Amino acid sequence: MDKSKLTIVKIGGKLINDPEQLDLFLEVFDSLKAPKILVHGGGRKATDLSQQLGIEVHMIDGRRITDKDTLDIAVMVYAGLINKNIVARLQGKGTNALGLSGADGNAIQSHKRIIEDLDYGFVGDVDFINGPFLKNLLEAGICPVFSPITHNAKGILLNTNADTIASRLAIDMQAYFDVELSFCFEYPGVMKDLTSSQDYYHELYSGEFKALKEEDRIHSGMLPKLKNAFDAAASGVSCVRICGIENLTIQNSGTRLFP
Amino acid sequence: MDKSKLTIVKIGGKLINDPEQLDLFLEVFDSLKAPKILVHGGGRKATDLSQQLGIEVHMIDGRRITDKDTLDIAVMVYAGLINKNIVARLQGKGTNALGLSGADGNAIQSHKRIIEDLDYGFVGDVDFINGPFLKNLLEAGICPVFSPITHNAKGILLNTNADTIASRLAIDMQAYFDVELSFCFEYPGVMKDLTSSQDYYHELYSGEFKALKEEDRIHSGMLPKLKNAFDAAASGVSCVRICGIENLTIQNSGTRLFP
Repeated sequence: MDKSKLTIVKIGGKLINDPEQLDLFLEVFDSLKAPKILVHGGGRKATDLSQQLGIEVHMIDGRRITDKDTLDIAVMVYAGLINKNIVARLQGKGTNALGLSGADGNAIQSHKRIIEDLDYGFVGDVDFINGPFLKNLLEAGICPVFSPITHNAKGILLNTNADTIASRLAIDMQAYFDVELSFCFEYPGVMKDLTSSQDYYHELYSGEFKALKEEDRIHSGMLPKLKNAFDAAASGVSCVRICGIENLTIQNSGTRLFP
Repeated sequence: MDKSKLTIVKIGGKLINDPEQLDLFLEVFDSLKAPKILVHGGGRKATDLSQQLGIEVHMIDGRRITDKDTLDIAVMVYAGLINKNIVARLQGKGTNALGLSGADGNAIQSHKRIIEDLDYGFVGDVDFINGPFLKNLLEAGICPVFSPITHNAKGILLNTNADTIASRLAIDMQAYFDVELSFCFEYPGVMKDLTSSQDYYHELYSGEFKALKEEDRIHSGMLPKLKNAFDAAASGVSCVRICGIENLTIQNSGTRLFP
């Protein structure tokens, strides 16, 4: 039996920081056919608030460590301020949105990241997506809106990369749906050259991506996004793309990624 | 047909401010039989954060006005920090909690409070409880955890009294359940005299309440709580009581309220 289509869209910090862009995005997202899931990242507000409160950024060996104060700010800003405002605005447009952290309904479980004895603090790597719970919400006409906060199922909240959440949701929800995953950002696709043209790749294969990385032609901020996107493509997600607000509703537009 | 029982518990700021008391409460709440709903208030953290950020309290004619900055703090602290930490801790104990503001799933709609030309700012009075949505969650084994934030269904979040939310939930959920509503606070019941004894009223009728109010024998902080509790009792909620953590699990204990 053919599965019905599920649209998963991730938006990043730069779109969230700009009220006009965010409003435009929410208008376009509202127009997308359900079932759909929105995943949002953080944005500048958490950094601003940390600075105002005099919370210092902790680094060990060049790695950013999420201490308890920094986690609290992330939970307040991401799961509180940003998430609830996006939900209220989508409700105002007619999308029956429901804001979630990974703790809510045990939607996303993770574990604390500890790599080679380096404790990253309250940062979580995803272990488990609660597919049946999300399927039930979607079938009830509800649009889950994820903030990048998960939990370890032992009472602790953890800060988690929003690109990874979007990718893992896309991979796991394939059990029930034909999934399209779009990473929506401030350009219409992965740009060939940011300085001189508006040209972007219409297709990218993981082999090409490796070559571009080696030639240093894809800049650092794009690397984790593309890694998560290629993970989803490699796991069979039928359509994975990087696009802008202006081409989000145009099927297969932007940069399509292939394994 | 007999309706099944639904337990609604409201906890206030003083229990939330004290980590040990909150932990004890969550342990007891976890042990209550489902279906159940938790409603939490604010607590000191929002005031502390406002002071740290230099946000001033606005008063007009002796009334506190919720301006945009104050609303943002409430959304961050109540719907973010407090709500998500309670949800994660309940998940850790085995209760499948789901944190909600009124915007999530369009759970609670409200309108901006404007009384006799005085605009209270971003403060909402409840218009509508989404009973079918909450019934579906409860029947799926999920425990809704409400923060005191609602929405106007036009994209705006509003700060709303947690006692009122608890009372309105109890009244409206009677359509599906036999509801027990408990306001849980730092005393075992409505105290007869806070200075000299541990005696509390085991029963209070609305007529007695009026008399006690006139004699000034019930202090100001208790008045809105009791008003909301009597509203629920007058609307037919079968058991309404004010109690402490220590007698929350003891049926009909604390101060029972009758219309």
